[in-house]
Amino acid sequence: MEDLEIREANADDLPAIVAMLADDPLGAQRESPDDLAPYRVALERLDADPNQHLVVAVRAGRVIGTLQLTTIPGLSHRGATRALIEAVRIDSDERGSGLGSLLIEWAIDTARRLGCRMVQLTSDKSRTDAHRFYERLGFTASHEGFKMKL
Amino acid sequence: MEDLEIREANADDLPAIVAMLADDPLGAQRESPDDLAPYRVALERLDADPNQHLVVAVRAGRVIGTLQLTTIPGLSHRGATRALIEAVRIDSDERGSGLGSLLIEWAIDTARRLGCRMVQLTSDKSRTDAHRFYERLGFTASHEGFKMKL
Repeated sequence: MEDLEIREANADDLPAIVAMLADDPLGAQRESPDDLAPYRVALERLDADPNQHLVVAVRAGRVIGTLQLTTIPGLSHRGATRALIEAVRIDSDERGSGLGSLLIEWAIDTARRLGCRMVQLTSDKSRTDAHRFYERLGFTASHEGFKMKL
Repeated sequence: MEDLEIREANADDLPAIVAMLADDPLGAQRESPDDLAPYRVALERLDADPNQHLVVAVRAGRVIGTLQLTTIPGLSHRGATRALIEAVRIDSDERGSGLGSLLIEWAIDTARRLGCRMVQLTSDKSRTDAHRFYERLGFTASHEGFKMKL
């Protein structure tokens, strides 16, 4: 993993990112890798917001992983800022390689550097492998995660 | 509830908000209602971020509820912006009055108006009453919620 780079994503990375979002039992039903227009609009929103850090992991010029880190100020926990991790994806050829751990550890380190006192994420209850992965990395499944589509 | 107002919070609301954050089995261990300084700093961070909506519910001049709504752009779900609800608190005298439902419905309506396609929240696994409350309002406990203190 020595030549791995984790950097902010840009528009040229979109095809690879969206392909990873879609290459997944849940993602296949809800993404449109053949129509990148809505993703380009969303990337502009992400770029305009200093609390958003959409990153890619790149090796030998190839995008092989991605995640989004969001910092969220708040009053609770004595005015603690928290970090939220969303949209973690690893290229199918790279799963089991340790890249996922490196990406999450990058997110934890970045959250700490940005002054966050907590980092949180939710994972679909069907992703039991992911749950073990996050617990190994030091997360606690202390909360129920509720969602509602609008 | 006819004279209820839900509006953005300001510095004058901080004592009442922090008192509600602390008046709770979990909050009592982690808040400092006698020292508002860290909360004032956090409120400045919230005010500076257009994606943050910290609101209070006020009746007859009294702050009786609060929550924080955050909008988060993203790539997944075809570039959907999502909304996150955090720090929901109801004054102990008002619990069971329907105020919690009104506040959460305000958050859902606001998320929709702001173009969000999903609204999400996490709730500590010990708060089983809250879980039934969110399910009655239409949320699905589809995810595990992972946290890590930094």
